[in-house]
Amino acid sequence: MKSAVSVLLLASLFAASTLAQSSHVDLKKPLVIASQGSFFVGGEKKALPAPPAGRGGFGGGDVTVNQMYVQYQVPPNGTRHLPVVMVHGCCLSSKTWETTPDGRMGWDEYFVRRDRSVYLADQVSRARSGFDSSVISEVKAGTQPPSALPNIIYASQQIAWTVFRFGPAFGKTFPDGQFPIESVDELYKQMIPDFNALLPNPNPTWKNMAALAVQLKGAILMGHSESGFFPQQAALLDPSGIRGMISIEMPCADLSAEQIGKLAKIPTLVMFGDHLGDVQGGPANWAQSLESCNTYVKKVKDAGGDAVMMHLPQMGIKGNSHMLMQDRNSLQLADLIVDWIDQHVESQGKGQKAKGKS
Amino acid sequence: MKSAVSVLLLASLFAASTLAQSSHVDLKKPLVIASQGSFFVGGEKKALPAPPAGRGGFGGGDVTVNQMYVQYQVPPNGTRHLPVVMVHGCCLSSKTWETTPDGRMGWDEYFVRRDRSVYLADQVSRARSGFDSSVISEVKAGTQPPSALPNIIYASQQIAWTVFRFGPAFGKTFPDGQFPIESVDELYKQMIPDFNALLPNPNPTWKNMAALAVQLKGAILMGHSESGFFPQQAALLDPSGIRGMISIEMPCADLSAEQIGKLAKIPTLVMFGDHLGDVQGGPANWAQSLESCNTYVKKVKDAGGDAVMMHLPQMGIKGNSHMLMQDRNSLQLADLIVDWIDQHVESQGKGQKAKGKS
Repeated sequence: MKSAVSVLLLASLFAASTLAQSSHVDLKKPLVIASQGSFFVGGEKKALPAPPAGRGGFGGGDVTVNQMYVQYQVPPNGTRHLPVVMVHGCCLSSKTWETTPDGRMGWDEYFVRRDRSVYLADQVSRARSGFDSSVISEVKAGTQPPSALPNIIYASQQIAWTVFRFGPAFGKTFPDGQFPIESVDELYKQMIPDFNALLPNPNPTWKNMAALAVQLKGAILMGHSESGFFPQQAALLDPSGIRGMISIEMPCADLSAEQIGKLAKIPTLVMFGDHLGDVQGGPANWAQSLESCNTYVKKVKDAGGDAVMMHLPQMGIKGNSHMLMQDRNSLQLADLIVDWIDQHVESQGKGQKAKGKS
Repeated sequence: MKSAVSVLLLASLFAASTLAQSSHVDLKKPLVIASQGSFFVGGEKKALPAPPAGRGGFGGGDVTVNQMYVQYQVPPNGTRHLPVVMVHGCCLSSKTWETTPDGRMGWDEYFVRRDRSVYLADQVSRARSGFDSSVISEVKAGTQPPSALPNIIYASQQIAWTVFRFGPAFGKTFPDGQFPIESVDELYKQMIPDFNALLPNPNPTWKNMAALAVQLKGAILMGHSESGFFPQQAALLDPSGIRGMISIEMPCADLSAEQIGKLAKIPTLVMFGDHLGDVQGGPANWAQSLESCNTYVKKVKDAGGDAVMMHLPQMGIKGNSHMLMQDRNSLQLADLIVDWIDQHVESQGKGQKAKGKS
């Protein structure tokens, strides 16, 4: 296992090691932040019964559930561009977008250095957003049967290897693979249990993402994997704040003409990496996911919308894994996304945002 | 419930509203960061059995458990001072130290503005550190009885009100209370289930805190409430990287002379707020906690150590709650801590840190 000390050393060297990756900004320069912080979106009060004596908790009362934790950084020039909201996938947290497993700069900071305000959201029921633990306490107390427990999703290291397409089978890599596989143990530490099975329908994260876009007076929503279609789900609930949708590697839903018509009003980017059909087993079928998204993109275009599919190997960019924001060429991919924002979202005069602060 | 919109507005105004609180730095100036990022400390591989079909998970395999997520910011002058590691309390995450519920600057950023590198750790089994969910899946699958489920600790709003000493009873406030009670709903959103009952003994967070201090080539550890004595627990495991210990509002353990002798080599600050005996009910007894810590401080001093008790009302600082890092006078308290570091830790030549980077 790679030691955390060497991760720190790598982190301290990131500026030099990634400099060549960006022709847009000097990654060695100190980062200047106009403002940063964190807050919550959404959340409702829920009354809990008191657990039987000695069975956990501090007694009954009200707790808050379904809130979404958001951490943000606004660069000095951040108000010139639309903010970007990044939402992680299954069994992960916002760590997804931060320092890569091998200690390079994450998209969170890189987008800030490219003058974008960045908002990282932990999905409702994950990480700092917390979750509703009441059913677990109730099963322990005997007031609910074990079958009431949620199906917790976790990705073992063996499953993650192929689902994330590090290679054709566990322990084997693709010769052109872009994921920093020597640091895979650091990725495994990011993988945390997924309680989404506890959530009501519709998923509160969708509503909270839509509400955040409204609060920000216009934002671009980005999702990955489990959350890849969340920008669309958010827009179907309330499109009013959503100026662009970026969907990375997920199955696209088969929507009605009315739904497609609604989504076609918002510029859309879909991105897929490489080796989609080259892995065996696991719960994902990436080739099928790509096909469903090609269909989705075509439907949006047919409805008069602006939708772009970036299937990276078709653009000559080879070897990208499912965790492409952590791949060795991650900043090159970030530049593709920033260029897409500039050309497809902000060129239409929608970039003159008004967050109400300088 | 206070809307998130107004939180954002407050956040954008924090610079102006808190300016008067700090005579040391101009809070309105953009923040300059030499480096920032996140990484993990610790973590071990654990083999999980495959769950029965349809009972959750993606099949068996190895997962990583007991890792600790750490997020950091290093200011341009950060290497002139020892880094400060902040660890949150029960039913909370590192959000504790960030933007306050009423939108003011948290200690995380304020310490950076006071030229300290800041490392925020989510306790093992909380938030972005993840937790070992296997027993929940096993109970659902029927391979373990419901009694095997952990005692999840959560603090209801009613319990938190008095435990955090917002007032003598739920819904009532102290006339001189410093907590921004109009924003208490934002605090409730920070409160998340606590899985520490799942952890082995000794708590892996202690080992990881000690290891982080070693990695940083010297650090000051700060804990609060549940984690208030964690700096000491970490030092009892491995004191070699720990240059100072800051303990905020917790019961102090009754230690042996040998243990006290070990801890007496490290400068220690203990801080308690106001109204310790003025709340009714709940699992905490703050007056008793203060008494146990007065005893601890005396023992350390008797052993030749440097230990300071700051019981704030005795210093003329009135009305502080248990969440004193979020109280209206939070930056005044941060200044007290920075002054203590300067006078008790770094004045001894221990402040010439060497993290190996500029």
